[in-house]
Amino acid sequence: MANLLDSIKKTNDIKKIPPEKWDRLAQEIRDFLVSNVSKTGGHLSSNLGAVELTMALHLALDLPNDEIVWDVGHQSYTHKILTGRKEDFPTLRKYGGMSGFPKRSESPCDVFNTGHSSTSISAGVGLVKARDLQGQRHTIVSVIGDGAMTGGMAYEALNNAAKLKSNFIIILNDNEMSISPNVGGISNYLNDIRTSDSYISLRDKIYYSMNDSMPQAVDRIRRAKNSLKQLMIPGMYFEDLGITYLGPVNGHNIRDIIRAVNDAKQLKKAVLIHVITRKGKGYGPAEKHPARFHGTGPFDVATGLPEGHKDKADWTDVFSTVMIKMAQRDPKIVAITAAMADGVGLKRFRNIYPDRFFDVGIAEQHAVTFAAGLAAGGLTPVVCVYSSFLQRAYDQILHDVCLQHLHVIFAIDRSGLVGADGATHQGIFDLSYLSSIPDMTVMAPKNKWELSDMMKFADRYDGPVAIRYPRGAAYDGLEEFRPDVRYGKSEVIYEEEDILLYAVGSMVETAVKVRSALKDRGLSCTLVNARFVKPYDTEMLDELAPSHPLIVTMEENTVSGGFGDNVLRYFAEKQMDNRILNIAIPDTFVEHGNCDILRQVTGIDEATVTARILTEWAGIGERRGK
Amino acid sequence: MANLLDSIKKTNDIKKIPPEKWDRLAQEIRDFLVSNVSKTGGHLSSNLGAVELTMALHLALDLPNDEIVWDVGHQSYTHKILTGRKEDFPTLRKYGGMSGFPKRSESPCDVFNTGHSSTSISAGVGLVKARDLQGQRHTIVSVIGDGAMTGGMAYEALNNAAKLKSNFIIILNDNEMSISPNVGGISNYLNDIRTSDSYISLRDKIYYSMNDSMPQAVDRIRRAKNSLKQLMIPGMYFEDLGITYLGPVNGHNIRDIIRAVNDAKQLKKAVLIHVITRKGKGYGPAEKHPARFHGTGPFDVATGLPEGHKDKADWTDVFSTVMIKMAQRDPKIVAITAAMADGVGLKRFRNIYPDRFFDVGIAEQHAVTFAAGLAAGGLTPVVCVYSSFLQRAYDQILHDVCLQHLHVIFAIDRSGLVGADGATHQGIFDLSYLSSIPDMTVMAPKNKWELSDMMKFADRYDGPVAIRYPRGAAYDGLEEFRPDVRYGKSEVIYEEEDILLYAVGSMVETAVKVRSALKDRGLSCTLVNARFVKPYDTEMLDELAPSHPLIVTMEENTVSGGFGDNVLRYFAEKQMDNRILNIAIPDTFVEHGNCDILRQVTGIDEATVTARILTEWAGIGERRGK
Repeated sequence: MANLLDSIKKTNDIKKIPPEKWDRLAQEIRDFLVSNVSKTGGHLSSNLGAVELTMALHLALDLPNDEIVWDVGHQSYTHKILTGRKEDFPTLRKYGGMSGFPKRSESPCDVFNTGHSSTSISAGVGLVKARDLQGQRHTIVSVIGDGAMTGGMAYEALNNAAKLKSNFIIILNDNEMSISPNVGGISNYLNDIRTSDSYISLRDKIYYSMNDSMPQAVDRIRRAKNSLKQLMIPGMYFEDLGITYLGPVNGHNIRDIIRAVNDAKQLKKAVLIHVITRKGKGYGPAEKHPARFHGTGPFDVATGLPEGHKDKADWTDVFSTVMIKMAQRDPKIVAITAAMADGVGLKRFRNIYPDRFFDVGIAEQHAVTFAAGLAAGGLTPVVCVYSSFLQRAYDQILHDVCLQHLHVIFAIDRSGLVGADGATHQGIFDLSYLSSIPDMTVMAPKNKWELSDMMKFADRYDGPVAIRYPRGAAYDGLEEFRPDVRYGKSEVIYEEEDILLYAVGSMVETAVKVRSALKDRGLSCTLVNARFVKPYDTEMLDELAPSHPLIVTMEENTVSGGFGDNVLRYFAEKQMDNRILNIAIPDTFVEHGNCDILRQVTGIDEATVTARILTEWAGIGERRGK
Repeated sequence: MANLLDSIKKTNDIKKIPPEKWDRLAQEIRDFLVSNVSKTGGHLSSNLGAVELTMALHLALDLPNDEIVWDVGHQSYTHKILTGRKEDFPTLRKYGGMSGFPKRSESPCDVFNTGHSSTSISAGVGLVKARDLQGQRHTIVSVIGDGAMTGGMAYEALNNAAKLKSNFIIILNDNEMSISPNVGGISNYLNDIRTSDSYISLRDKIYYSMNDSMPQAVDRIRRAKNSLKQLMIPGMYFEDLGITYLGPVNGHNIRDIIRAVNDAKQLKKAVLIHVITRKGKGYGPAEKHPARFHGTGPFDVATGLPEGHKDKADWTDVFSTVMIKMAQRDPKIVAITAAMADGVGLKRFRNIYPDRFFDVGIAEQHAVTFAAGLAAGGLTPVVCVYSSFLQRAYDQILHDVCLQHLHVIFAIDRSGLVGADGATHQGIFDLSYLSSIPDMTVMAPKNKWELSDMMKFADRYDGPVAIRYPRGAAYDGLEEFRPDVRYGKSEVIYEEEDILLYAVGSMVETAVKVRSALKDRGLSCTLVNARFVKPYDTEMLDELAPSHPLIVTMEENTVSGGFGDNVLRYFAEKQMDNRILNIAIPDTFVEHGNCDILRQVTGIDEATVTARILTEWAGIGERRGK
């Protein structure tokens, strides 16, 4: 039996597959996804859940003329397969290879890049208005998960979509989860729809009105104001907002979805199709543990167990443990996550302190101002969030936390380069956007013990304080260096003269290696662990500057507005004429790829840094020689 | 007849006023507000609309034990009167005087500072959780307008409030407006409630269930799942989210509001009381023109006309005109505002190009990603927003616009010091947060003609581009200097030697004066208008650095991560040893007050800058002398 997938070579090839073979193709796609992701790693659960939905969209639409916006975009693998990118899967998320998210640069069928949550309806409304104003007539579809629907942006966008007088299709891909199970009012509401009598009695039909001809039936029901419609129609929440609701639809039945999309196309307004899918569908281990297979490394297909062995604790594991210890000692400590309890390491905390744990949904803005409220009420909230997602709450950090000098602790995971997730997820802006905010304190630990010490310091401190630490294995070198954490003070690890390496957090490990390399070349080198990025240690600089003509700041952050810029300013103000070399990520976006490669590409790896310092030092020697 | 207001000297004094005199007190408060704001300027419409609501809350609650969070906070004047701050009104919004917003530092009755929109429910949920975890029992109330309800944060917070199992009262102060009339689905929905039969027939009662004893009646209705409740009860939208809805209530009837609050207190969950008020209530000109009296300068009470005379066009006026010209020439130009059509100068544009004008509500996040969608669809959107509000969309600018190199123009009004609105509204962070984003282009015009030229340049450019300009009168000096705007190029206005003034936007005007003052002291001074903050003009620096031992960067922005920091980095990289003096706002928040005073306080005024340069120059002379 020929492999159906072999015949899918380019966009719209799926339309040649006869309907009776759709299910077989779906199975082949699932096998392909499991087989490939088991080797490369990547997002699995969400993609397995969206196979039929994606096939149905490709069958019902005319791509690339019609446009699909994938919210978050980690569910777009089947879309990539169906648009001529099947052969690229071995390079998935590798440097120079195919992105794990939609990319306009990869295909004309990727109309809008995504990565962060809850953007697709906003983008879709924009595409609709652009279409209408230019007299075009294609179909625009935004596909959004129920998790992404907890983000405020999605609601802002729905509120605007309601005003549209032309067609716009929103597919609510409802799998009852974001990465972890969803929470909150909207989630309960969707659950009510799923489990209500109306759904149960209708679940074998496509949706409530399919016995009638469409869209007249929908229109008729909608026109019947003051009738009994609210009792019969699920989705009144969306109808109240002004969005026509169709559903629920079985998200693993391709024919049903196609019919719903074709019906939705007839309406000259925003229509939401509520599609019920199952995360991890078709692969036992992923169905059972959808969160573990949300984003996964390589794994054994037969058992679902990860390949390789984690020999070191992650930064997240260290944080996880210290949070519980802090909570034991300090009853004021509470923890907040934005739909990432597993990712940020709060699962155990949640189990031990369910009343002091808050998962607010994908809602970073609320997370931060909610924390401000908790702090104003006398508690000490720890906002646990990934660096790139905290960008969503820049205003709230500034306006609600720092302006009131509230004691909120920001535990910022995935700071610095994150690797395979790519440009949307690199945590390389936090030192800049946090340093620009008055009253903010910013720290970064050199190793796992220091993360623990800094958390405890942050608990004792009374004001806004952020601790940023990277993705991956926690550095466990330099154990013997563990002086007390003191406000605004750095740690001088090795004091010599000539060259001062002034390194932030993860770059201390690199600095240790750079120092070795420089010493091998006979150079004398002081190593200072910055600890505090804001305020940084000016006393130390005053003391060491005279004996160090070359000062090298090192940070895993964009160069613009980061640690180095701040240190430079101090030297300019004090009119100290040391040569300052800033090692940082250049002012460009950094694509996906292995972190070691990315460090080389961005010039913050040991070899590049060593070479740059040698060049600088030679220059200083020349000038001195003059 | 004694003045009732005279007896209101401190918190809870209102409780001594007998109910039959409440209406008279309300009138006295209105007279007081009109009289005072007519002299000092300030927010008027929103405060006139909230007089009875505020009185009712003070009567129904036990302050400061109970806690009120005022969304935005510009409606808190009556609250200030009732909490012992009546005598401070002559200092309203003046430097060192009373803030126009709630301030924890002013009163224990101000429990949470506000200024930006849609934060109050998040803060309220935080206060509720803090109360419960600490075993306290006071009442917490968040007061939010229907305008603020269009912000996504409010929805994120409602979604979380729905999970509460203890009392939390949300007052939806519905006046059908934010600053301008509201837009979108939720607004239409609230309008449906206001105008529905159920409201009309009930409008003389307090709300639907007050004929029954409370809260049993509410509980009974709510328990009646699958009953007819949805037909009888307005507010099912909120009920669907899991928030109990009470209303609508006449917001100018104190007794009704008190009863609603007392009833709401009985429920162990989140309750939303829908209160209908009229913006500007009780003062004819404000009722007629609520937007004009939203935030007003001094005015004549009898006529409502502004005092004084605007002799110069505002930056906003200039922008307003150029937008229409650009739209005439380029059919791709569309304009977006977040509920500030008047404020940002888009009123005329809206009238001329209604199809190309989008007011998205108080929804900056959506505004930016919607713009990204419009740009991806082939149009050229101009996002017109105040600097401090754009902070809300930092992630969207980075993630949705710049990462895709989309042609979105950001017209950033109210950049720099804004004066009376104070710390929450100062636009002093945009150069920092925008400069940290790769691929962003940032410009600032020196005078009104340059704003026009830069807008046209931005239209021709193909990528993300921001133009920031200040509040108030547009500078109309230097008319004779109008070379073409070229990408990344500065404008050398006067070229001499020794001291190079490198000024951004509004600071060019100051630099002209500083240069005069320096020349009076016999110093030679070059004046460069930066034009581009990112990328700044390194060619010019290379050329002029040798002849200018002192380079002075000047910006109306925080020092951290701003223009000066970026220029410093260039000099460090190139190992040019010019002395660089950065004139910028220090790394602190800046309170309310007259802009001239604030410029002095922050050290960016002509006199301070001149003095600092003289000191620096003396130092350079000394070193040269050695």
